[in-house]
Amino acid sequence: MYIGKVIGRVVSTVKDPGLASQRLLIVQPLTPAMQPTGKQIVCTDSIGAGAGELVYWTRGKESSFPFLPVEVPTDTTIVGIIDQLRVAG
Amino acid sequence: MYIGKVIGRVVSTVKDPGLASQRLLIVQPLTPAMQPTGKQIVCTDSIGAGAGELVYWTRGKESSFPFLPVEVPTDTTIVGIIDQLRVAG
Amino acid sequence: MYIGKVIGRVVSTVKDPGLASQRLLIVQPLTPAMQPTGKQIVCTDSIGAGAGELVYWTRGKESSFPFLPVEVPTDTTIVGIIDQLRVAG
Amino acid sequence: MYIGKVIGRVVSTVKDPGLASQRLLIVQPLTPAMQPTGKQIVCTDSIGAGAGELVYWTRGKESSFPFLPVEVPTDTTIVGIIDQLRVAG
Amino acid sequence: MYIGKVIGRVVSTVKDPGLASQRLLIVQPLTPAMQPTGKQIVCTDSIGAGAGELVYWTRGKESSFPFLPVEVPTDTTIVGIIDQLRVAG
Repeated sequence: MYIGKVIGRVVSTVKDPGLASQRLLIVQPLTPAMQPTGKQIVCTDSIGAGAGELVYWTRGKESSFPFLPVEVPTDTTIVGIIDQLRVAG
Repeated sequence: MYIGKVIGRVVSTVKDPGLASQRLLIVQPLTPAMQPTGKQIVCTDSIGAGAGELVYWTRGKESSFPFLPVEVPTDTTIVGIIDQLRVAG
Repeated sequence: MYIGKVIGRVVSTVKDPGLASQRLLIVQPLTPAMQPTGKQIVCTDSIGAGAGELVYWTRGKESSFPFLPVEVPTDTTIVGIIDQLRVAG
Repeated sequence: MYIGKVIGRVVSTVKDPGLASQRLLIVQPLTPAMQPTGKQIVCTDSIGAGAGELVYWTRGKESSFPFLPVEVPTDTTIVGIIDQLRVAG
Repeated sequence: MYIGKVIGRVVSTVKDPGLASQRLLIVQPLTPAMQPTGKQIVCTDSIGAGAGELVYWTRGKESSFPFLPVEVPTDTTIVGIIDQLRVAG
Protein backbone atom coordinates (compact mmCIF):
# COMPACT_ATOMS: atom_id res chain seq x y z
CA MET A 1 0.00 0.00 0.00
CA TYR A 2 1.02 3.58 -0.49
CA ILE A 3 0.86 6.72 1.59
CA GLY A 4 -1.03 9.77 0.32
CA LYS A 5 -3.04 12.84 1.13
CA VAL A 6 -6.57 13.63 -0.05
CA ILE A 7 -6.35 16.92 -1.97
CA GLY A 8 -9.62 17.14 -3.86
CA ARG A 9 -12.35 15.29 -5.65
CA VAL A 10 -13.72 14.52 -9.10
CA VAL A 11 -17.23 15.53 -10.09
CA SER A 12 -18.55 13.08 -12.65
CA THR A 13 -22.07 12.54 -13.97
CA VAL A 14 -21.41 10.06 -16.76
CA LYS A 15 -19.70 7.01 -15.34
CA ASP A 16 -19.69 3.24 -15.41
CA PRO A 17 -22.71 1.86 -13.49
CA GLY A 18 -20.26 -0.03 -11.28
CA LEU A 19 -19.05 3.32 -9.93
CA ALA A 20 -22.53 4.61 -9.05
CA SER A 21 -22.61 6.17 -5.56
CA GLN A 22 -18.82 5.97 -5.23
CA ARG A 23 -17.00 9.12 -4.10
CA LEU A 24 -13.93 9.83 -6.25
CA LEU A 25 -11.11 11.50 -4.33
CA ILE A 26 -7.91 13.00 -5.75
CA VAL A 27 -4.87 11.75 -3.83
CA GLN A 28 -1.29 13.03 -3.88
CA PRO A 29 1.08 10.12 -3.14
CA LEU A 30 3.62 11.00 -0.42
CA THR A 31 6.79 9.54 1.05
CA PRO A 32 6.78 8.76 4.81
CA ALA A 33 8.71 12.06 5.11
CA MET A 34 5.64 13.79 3.58
CA GLN A 35 7.29 14.65 0.26
CA PRO A 36 5.05 14.44 -2.84
CA THR A 37 6.09 11.51 -5.03
CA GLY A 38 4.60 10.51 -8.37
CA LYS A 39 1.37 11.50 -10.07
CA GLN A 40 -1.86 12.43 -8.40
CA ILE A 41 -4.50 9.76 -8.82
CA VAL A 42 -8.26 9.30 -8.49
CA CYS A 43 -9.27 6.88 -5.71
CA THR A 44 -12.47 5.26 -4.58
CA ASP A 45 -12.82 5.22 -0.81
CA SER A 46 -13.94 2.40 1.46
CA ILE A 47 -13.56 4.17 4.80
CA GLY A 48 -14.88 7.74 4.52
CA ALA A 49 -11.71 9.85 4.17
CA GLY A 50 -11.99 13.63 3.96
CA ALA A 51 -10.03 16.44 2.31
CA GLY A 52 -6.59 16.97 3.84
CA GLU A 53 -6.46 13.58 5.54
CA LEU A 54 -3.39 11.37 5.45
CA VAL A 55 -4.36 7.94 4.11
CA TYR A 56 -3.02 4.74 2.62
CA TRP A 57 -4.36 3.22 -0.56
CA THR A 58 -4.05 0.05 -2.61
CA ARG A 59 -3.43 -0.41 -6.30
CA GLY A 60 -4.75 -3.17 -8.54
CA LYS A 61 -7.51 -5.72 -8.23
CA GLU A 62 -7.30 -5.73 -4.42
CA SER A 63 -8.77 -2.22 -4.66
CA SER A 64 -12.12 -3.74 -5.49
CA PHE A 65 -12.17 -6.16 -2.53
CA PRO A 66 -13.77 -3.69 -0.08
CA PHE A 67 -16.81 -3.44 -2.35
CA LEU A 68 -17.42 -7.16 -2.90
CA PRO A 69 -19.73 -8.80 -3.93
CA VAL A 70 -20.16 -5.72 -6.17
CA GLU A 71 -17.43 -5.72 -8.85
CA VAL A 72 -16.49 -2.04 -8.81
CA PRO A 73 -14.20 -1.12 -11.74
CA THR A 74 -11.59 0.70 -9.65
CA ASP A 75 -7.86 0.05 -9.35
CA THR A 76 -7.00 2.55 -6.60
CA THR A 77 -8.88 2.63 -3.30
CA ILE A 78 -8.28 4.35 0.03
CA VAL A 79 -8.40 1.62 2.69
CA GLY A 80 -7.28 3.43 5.86
CA ILE A 81 -6.57 6.72 7.59
CA ILE A 82 -3.10 7.20 9.11
CA ASP A 83 -2.97 8.32 12.73
CA GLN A 84 0.80 8.26 12.95
CA LEU A 85 3.89 7.06 11.08
CA ARG A 86 6.65 5.59 13.25
CA VAL A 87 9.86 5.44 11.26
CA ALA A 88 13.04 4.21 12.95
CA GLY A 89 15.77 6.82 13.16
CA MET B 1 -7.83 5.64 -11.47
CA TYR B 2 -6.06 8.15 -13.62
CA ILE B 3 -7.03 11.37 -15.36
CA GLY B 4 -6.65 11.69 -19.13
CA LYS B 5 -7.89 13.25 -22.33
CA VAL B 6 -9.13 11.40 -25.41
CA ILE B 7 -6.89 12.48 -28.29
CA GLY B 8 -7.58 9.97 -31.04
CA ARG B 9 -8.42 6.43 -31.92
CA VAL B 10 -6.95 3.22 -33.28
CA VAL B 11 -8.28 1.63 -36.46
CA SER B 12 -7.79 -2.12 -36.28
CA THR B 13 -9.22 -4.89 -38.42
CA VAL B 14 -7.27 -7.88 -37.12
CA LYS B 15 -7.85 -8.21 -33.41
CA ASP B 16 -8.60 -10.69 -30.68
CA PRO B 17 -12.25 -11.84 -30.89
CA GLY B 18 -12.68 -10.61 -27.31
CA LEU B 19 -12.18 -7.05 -28.59
CA ALA B 20 -14.80 -7.28 -31.34
CA SER B 21 -17.07 -4.22 -31.42
CA GLN B 22 -14.91 -2.37 -28.87
CA ARG B 23 -13.88 1.20 -29.71
CA LEU B 24 -10.18 1.79 -29.07
CA LEU B 25 -9.39 5.33 -27.97
CA ILE B 26 -5.97 6.95 -27.59
CA VAL B 27 -5.67 8.70 -24.22
CA GLN B 28 -3.05 11.16 -23.01
CA PRO B 29 -2.67 10.83 -19.22
CA LEU B 30 -2.84 14.22 -17.45
CA THR B 31 -2.19 15.63 -13.99
CA PRO B 32 -5.12 17.37 -12.24
CA ALA B 33 -3.37 20.58 -13.39
CA MET B 34 -3.87 19.36 -16.98
CA GLN B 35 -0.18 18.70 -17.68
CA PRO B 36 0.60 15.66 -19.88
CA THR B 37 2.24 12.93 -17.81
CA GLY B 38 3.51 9.57 -19.05
CA LYS B 39 2.88 7.69 -22.27
CA GLN B 40 -0.23 7.81 -24.37
CA ILE B 41 -2.20 4.59 -24.17
CA VAL B 42 -4.98 2.73 -25.98
CA CYS B 43 -8.18 2.35 -23.93
CA THR B 44 -11.43 0.50 -24.33
CA ASP B 45 -14.42 2.58 -23.30
CA SER B 46 -17.41 1.58 -21.19
CA ILE B 47 -19.23 4.93 -21.19
CA GLY B 48 -19.12 6.48 -24.66
CA ALA B 49 -16.38 9.11 -24.39
CA GLY B 50 -15.58 11.29 -27.40
CA ALA B 51 -12.51 13.04 -28.79
CA GLY B 52 -11.28 15.90 -26.61
CA GLU B 53 -13.17 14.78 -23.51
CA LEU B 54 -11.60 14.71 -20.07
CA VAL B 55 -11.98 11.24 -18.59
CA TYR B 56 -10.71 8.88 -15.92
CA TRP B 57 -9.57 5.37 -16.65
CA THR B 58 -8.54 2.22 -14.80
CA ARG B 59 -5.54 -0.02 -15.28
CA GLY B 60 -5.34 -3.77 -14.80
CA LYS B 61 -7.89 -6.53 -14.50
CA GLU B 62 -10.54 -4.15 -13.15
CA SER B 63 -10.57 -2.70 -16.66
CA SER B 64 -12.45 -5.73 -17.85
CA PHE B 65 -15.18 -5.56 -15.18
CA PRO B 66 -17.48 -3.23 -17.14
CA PHE B 67 -17.72 -5.85 -19.89
CA LEU B 68 -18.52 -8.88 -17.70
CA PRO B 69 -19.60 -11.63 -18.24
CA VAL B 70 -17.56 -11.18 -21.46
CA GLU B 71 -13.84 -11.51 -20.67
CA VAL B 72 -12.48 -8.66 -22.78
CA PRO B 73 -8.67 -8.76 -23.01
CA THR B 74 -8.12 -5.11 -22.08
CA ASP B 75 -6.06 -3.61 -19.28
CA THR B 76 -6.97 0.08 -19.70
CA THR B 77 -10.61 1.24 -19.82
CA ILE B 78 -12.28 4.63 -19.65
CA VAL B 79 -14.90 4.39 -16.88
CA GLY B 80 -16.12 7.99 -16.50
CA ILE B 81 -16.22 11.51 -17.93
CA ILE B 82 -14.99 14.34 -15.69
CA ASP B 83 -17.31 17.32 -15.25
CA GLN B 84 -15.04 19.15 -12.85
CA LEU B 85 -11.94 18.70 -10.71
CA ARG B 86 -12.04 20.32 -7.28
CA VAL B 87 -8.54 20.52 -5.85
CA ALA B 88 -8.00 22.18 -2.47
CA GLY B 89 -5.86 25.30 -2.22
CA MET C 1 -3.30 -1.25 -24.02
CA TYR C 2 -0.04 -0.08 -25.47
CA ILE C 3 1.28 0.53 -28.96
CA GLY C 4 4.37 -1.35 -30.18
CA LYS C 5 6.22 -2.85 -33.08
CA VAL C 6 7.29 -6.48 -33.47
CA ILE C 7 11.08 -6.45 -33.84
CA GLY C 8 12.10 -10.06 -33.32
CA ARG C 9 11.46 -13.29 -31.52
CA VAL C 10 12.73 -15.50 -28.72
CA VAL C 11 13.87 -19.06 -29.41
CA SER C 12 13.27 -21.16 -26.30
CA THR C 13 13.32 -24.92 -25.85
CA VAL C 14 13.00 -25.17 -22.08
CA LYS C 15 9.83 -23.44 -20.98
CA ASP C 16 6.82 -23.76 -18.75
CA PRO C 17 4.35 -26.32 -20.17
CA GLY C 18 1.72 -23.58 -20.19
CA LEU C 19 3.73 -21.80 -22.89
CA ALA C 20 4.01 -24.83 -25.18
CA SER C 21 3.23 -23.93 -28.80
CA GLN C 22 3.16 -20.20 -28.02
CA ARG C 23 5.21 -17.91 -30.26
CA LEU C 24 7.26 -15.41 -28.27
CA LEU C 25 7.71 -12.07 -30.02
CA ILE C 26 9.99 -9.20 -29.01
CA VAL C 27 8.08 -5.90 -29.03
CA GLN C 28 9.41 -2.35 -28.86
CA PRO C 29 6.80 -0.12 -27.17
CA LEU C 30 6.12 3.06 -29.18
CA THR C 31 4.32 6.36 -28.70
CA PRO C 32 1.51 7.19 -31.19
CA ALA C 33 4.16 9.39 -32.85
CA MET C 34 6.21 6.20 -33.40
CA GLN C 35 8.97 7.07 -30.92
CA PRO C 36 10.43 4.14 -28.94
CA THR C 37 9.40 4.37 -25.29
CA GLY C 38 10.41 2.04 -22.49
CA LYS C 39 11.98 -1.40 -22.53
CA GLN C 40 11.52 -4.05 -25.15
CA ILE C 41 9.41 -6.94 -23.93
CA VAL C 42 8.56 -10.52 -24.83
CA CYS C 43 4.90 -11.03 -25.82
CA THR C 44 2.70 -13.98 -26.56
CA ASP C 45 0.44 -13.40 -29.55
CA SER C 46 -3.25 -14.18 -29.95
CA ILE C 47 -3.72 -12.85 -33.48
CA GLY C 48 -0.78 -13.89 -35.67
CA ALA C 49 1.37 -10.74 -35.84
CA GLY C 50 4.55 -10.76 -37.93
CA ALA C 51 7.92 -9.02 -37.81
CA GLY C 52 7.72 -5.29 -38.45
CA GLU C 53 4.00 -5.02 -37.78
CA LEU C 54 2.49 -2.27 -35.67
CA VAL C 55 0.42 -3.81 -32.89
CA TYR C 56 -1.22 -3.14 -29.54
CA TRP C 57 -0.67 -5.34 -26.52
CA THR C 58 -2.05 -5.80 -23.02
CA ARG C 59 -0.23 -6.14 -19.73
CA GLY C 60 -1.25 -8.19 -16.70
CA LYS C 61 -3.71 -10.98 -16.13
CA GLU C 62 -5.90 -9.87 -19.04
CA SER C 63 -3.03 -11.06 -21.24
CA SER C 64 -4.03 -14.62 -20.55
CA PHE C 65 -7.72 -14.16 -21.46
CA PRO C 66 -7.28 -14.91 -25.19
CA PHE C 67 -5.97 -18.36 -24.29
CA LEU C 68 -8.72 -19.41 -21.86
CA PRO C 69 -9.62 -22.02 -20.70
CA VAL C 70 -5.85 -22.73 -20.83
CA GLU C 71 -4.09 -20.73 -18.07
CA VAL C 72 -1.06 -19.50 -20.03
CA PRO C 73 1.56 -17.91 -17.71
CA THR C 74 2.01 -14.74 -19.75
CA ASP C 75 1.60 -11.13 -18.69
CA THR C 76 2.10 -9.40 -22.07
CA THR C 77 0.08 -10.41 -25.15
CA ILE C 78 -0.42 -8.88 -28.58
CA VAL C 79 -4.18 -8.59 -29.11
CA GLY C 80 -4.47 -6.61 -32.34
CA ILE C 81 -2.75 -5.21 -35.43
CA ILE C 82 -2.99 -1.46 -36.02
CA ASP C 83 -4.18 -0.36 -39.46
CA GLN C 84 -4.07 3.34 -38.68
CA LEU C 85 -3.73 5.77 -35.78
CA ARG C 86 -5.95 8.85 -35.94
CA VAL C 87 -4.68 11.45 -33.52
CA ALA C 88 -6.40 14.84 -33.34
CA GLY C 89 -4.21 17.76 -34.33
CA MET D 1 9.42 -10.38 -5.44
CA TYR D 2 11.44 -7.46 -4.20
CA ILE D 3 14.05 -6.98 -1.52
CA GLY D 4 13.48 -4.46 1.28
CA LYS D 5 14.10 -3.48 4.86
CA VAL D 6 11.47 -2.86 7.53
CA ILE D 7 11.98 0.73 8.72
CA GLY D 8 8.83 1.54 10.65
CA ARG D 9 5.10 1.06 10.98
CA VAL D 10 1.78 2.78 10.40
CA VAL D 11 -0.62 3.41 13.27
CA SER D 12 -4.16 3.40 11.93
CA THR D 13 -7.48 3.25 13.76
CA VAL D 14 -9.91 3.82 10.91
CA LYS D 15 -9.36 1.17 8.27
CA ASP D 16 -11.15 -1.22 5.98
CA PRO D 17 -12.58 -4.16 7.99
CA GLY D 18 -10.54 -6.50 5.77
CA LEU D 19 -7.38 -5.04 7.33
CA ALA D 20 -8.48 -5.58 10.93
CA SER D 21 -5.71 -7.12 13.04
CA GLN D 22 -3.15 -6.69 10.24
CA ARG D 23 0.17 -5.06 11.17
CA LEU D 24 1.19 -2.38 8.66
CA LEU D 25 4.96 -2.10 8.20
CA ILE D 26 6.87 0.59 6.30
CA VAL D 27 9.40 -0.97 3.94
CA GLN D 28 12.29 0.66 2.06
CA PRO D 29 12.91 -1.26 -1.18
CA LEU D 30 16.61 -2.14 -1.63
CA THR D 31 18.86 -3.49 -4.36
CA PRO D 32 20.77 -6.74 -3.61
CA ALA D 33 23.74 -4.38 -2.94
CA MET D 34 21.63 -2.80 -0.17
CA GLN D 35 21.08 0.53 -1.92
CA PRO D 36 17.67 2.16 -1.40
CA THR D 37 15.65 2.09 -4.62
CA GLY D 38 12.20 3.55 -5.19
CA LYS D 39 9.56 4.74 -2.77
CA GLN D 40 8.91 3.45 0.68
CA ILE D 41 5.70 1.46 0.89
CA VAL D 42 3.26 0.11 3.46
CA CYS D 43 3.16 -3.71 3.65
CA THR D 44 1.03 -6.27 5.39
CA ASP D 45 3.07 -9.12 6.83
CA SER D 46 2.39 -12.84 6.69
CA ILE D 47 5.50 -14.04 8.55
CA GLY D 48 6.16 -11.81 11.57
CA ALA D 49 8.96 -9.50 10.39
CA GLY D 50 10.40 -6.94 12.80
CA ALA D 51 11.98 -3.49 12.52
CA GLY D 52 15.37 -3.53 10.81
CA GLU D 53 14.90 -6.94 9.22
CA LEU D 54 15.80 -7.66 5.61
CA VAL D 55 12.78 -9.12 3.85
CA TYR D 56 11.23 -9.85 0.46
CA TRP D 57 7.76 -8.79 -0.47
CA THR D 58 5.23 -9.29 -3.27
CA ARG D 59 3.19 -6.77 -5.18
CA GLY D 60 -0.32 -7.21 -6.59
CA LYS D 61 -3.08 -9.68 -6.00
CA GLU D 62 -0.66 -12.42 -4.93
CA SER D 63 -0.12 -10.28 -1.84
CA SER D 64 -3.48 -11.38 -0.56
CA PHE D 65 -2.86 -15.12 -1.02
CA PRO D 66 -1.27 -15.64 2.42
CA PHE D 67 -4.48 -14.46 4.05
CA LEU D 68 -6.94 -16.63 2.10
CA PRO D 69 -9.81 -17.41 2.49
CA VAL D 70 -10.02 -13.88 3.94
CA GLU D 71 -9.89 -11.34 1.07
CA VAL D 72 -7.53 -8.78 2.59
CA PRO D 73 -7.40 -5.56 0.52
CA THR D 74 -3.61 -5.35 0.37
CA ASP D 75 -1.31 -5.19 -2.64
CA THR D 76 2.07 -5.38 -0.90
CA THR D 77 2.90 -8.14 1.58
CA ILE D 78 6.10 -9.32 3.25
CA VAL D 79 6.35 -13.07 2.56
CA GLY D 80 9.84 -13.96 3.84
CA ILE D 81 12.89 -12.92 5.85
CA ILE D 82 16.26 -12.98 4.07
CA ASP D 83 19.07 -14.87 5.81
CA GLN D 84 21.60 -14.27 3.08
CA LEU D 85 21.91 -13.03 -0.51
CA ARG D 86 24.31 -14.97 -2.72
CA VAL D 87 25.11 -12.93 -5.80
CA ALA D 88 27.62 -14.28 -8.32
CA GLY D 89 30.73 -12.15 -8.65
CA MET E 1 7.36 -11.15 -20.28
CA TYR E 2 10.77 -9.75 -19.63
CA ILE E 3 14.31 -10.82 -20.40
CA GLY E 4 16.81 -11.34 -17.57
CA LYS E 5 19.83 -13.18 -16.29
CA VAL E 6 20.03 -15.27 -13.13
CA ILE E 7 22.76 -13.71 -10.98
CA GLY E 8 22.27 -15.25 -7.56
CA ARG E 9 19.84 -16.59 -5.03
CA VAL E 10 18.15 -15.76 -1.74
CA VAL E 11 18.63 -17.95 1.32
CA SER E 12 15.52 -17.75 3.49
CA THR E 13 14.42 -19.87 6.43
CA VAL E 14 11.39 -17.94 7.62
CA LYS E 15 8.92 -17.63 4.78
CA ASP E 16 5.27 -17.90 3.93
CA PRO E 17 4.17 -21.56 3.85
CA GLY E 18 3.07 -21.03 0.25
CA LEU E 19 6.72 -20.55 -0.69
CA ALA E 20 7.94 -23.76 0.95
CA SER E 21 10.29 -25.72 -1.33
CA GLN E 22 10.46 -22.86 -3.85
CA ARG E 23 13.90 -21.77 -5.01
CA LEU E 24 14.32 -17.98 -4.96
CA LEU E 25 16.59 -16.66 -7.69
CA ILE E 26 17.94 -13.12 -8.08
CA VAL E 27 17.40 -11.86 -11.64
CA GLN E 28 18.90 -8.83 -13.37
CA PRO E 29 16.45 -7.59 -16.02
CA LEU E 30 18.15 -7.04 -19.40
CA THR E 31 17.33 -5.45 -22.75
CA PRO E 32 17.51 -7.72 -25.86
CA ALA E 33 20.92 -6.06 -26.40
CA MET E 34 21.96 -7.48 -23.00
CA GLN E 35 22.12 -4.15 -21.18
CA PRO E 36 20.99 -4.20 -17.53
CA THR E 37 17.69 -2.33 -17.14
CA GLY E 38 15.79 -1.69 -13.92
CA LYS E 39 16.11 -3.23 -10.48
CA GLN E 40 17.18 -6.73 -9.67
CA ILE E 41 14.30 -8.85 -8.45
CA VAL E 42 13.66 -12.12 -6.64
CA CYS E 43 11.92 -14.77 -8.79
CA THR E 44 10.41 -18.16 -8.19
CA ASP E 45 11.27 -20.62 -10.94
CA SER E 46 9.00 -23.10 -12.72
CA ILE E 47 11.57 -24.56 -15.12
CA GLY E 48 14.86 -25.18 -13.28
CA ALA E 49 17.04 -22.22 -14.35
CA GLY E 50 20.62 -22.01 -13.10
CA ALA E 51 23.08 -19.23 -12.28
CA GLY E 52 24.22 -17.28 -15.32
CA GLU E 53 21.36 -18.44 -17.55
CA LEU E 54 19.43 -16.09 -19.80
CA VAL E 55 15.72 -16.39 -19.02
CA TYR E 56 12.35 -14.72 -19.43
CA TRP E 57 10.02 -14.09 -16.53
CA THR E 58 6.47 -12.92 -15.88
CA ARG E 59 5.17 -10.32 -13.49
CA GLY E 60 1.85 -10.31 -11.65
CA LYS E 61 -0.73 -12.95 -10.90
CA GLU E 62 0.21 -15.00 -13.98
CA SER E 63 3.42 -15.73 -12.08
CA SER E 64 1.51 -18.10 -9.86
CA PHE E 65 -0.12 -20.07 -12.72
CA PRO E 66 2.75 -22.58 -13.10
CA PHE E 67 2.22 -23.68 -9.49
CA LEU E 68 -1.57 -24.19 -9.61
CA PRO E 69 -3.56 -25.60 -7.88
CA VAL E 70 -1.18 -24.38 -5.13
CA GLU E 71 -1.63 -20.62 -4.64
CA VAL E 72 2.01 -19.57 -4.34
CA PRO E 73 2.34 -15.94 -3.17
CA THR E 74 4.81 -14.89 -5.87
CA ASP E 75 4.54 -12.10 -8.41
CA THR E 76 7.70 -12.77 -10.46
CA THR E 77 8.44 -16.21 -11.93
CA ILE E 78 10.96 -17.51 -14.44
CA VAL E 79 8.96 -19.39 -17.10
CA GLY E 80 11.57 -20.18 -19.77
CA ILE E 81 15.23 -20.31 -20.74
CA ILE E 82 16.32 -18.34 -23.82
CA ASP E 83 18.30 -20.23 -26.45
CA GLN E 84 18.56 -17.32 -28.83
CA LEU E 85 17.18 -13.84 -29.46
CA ARG E 86 16.50 -12.96 -33.10
CA VAL E 87 16.10 -9.22 -33.45
CA ALA E 88 15.58 -7.73 -36.90
CA GLY E 89 18.36 -5.41 -38.02
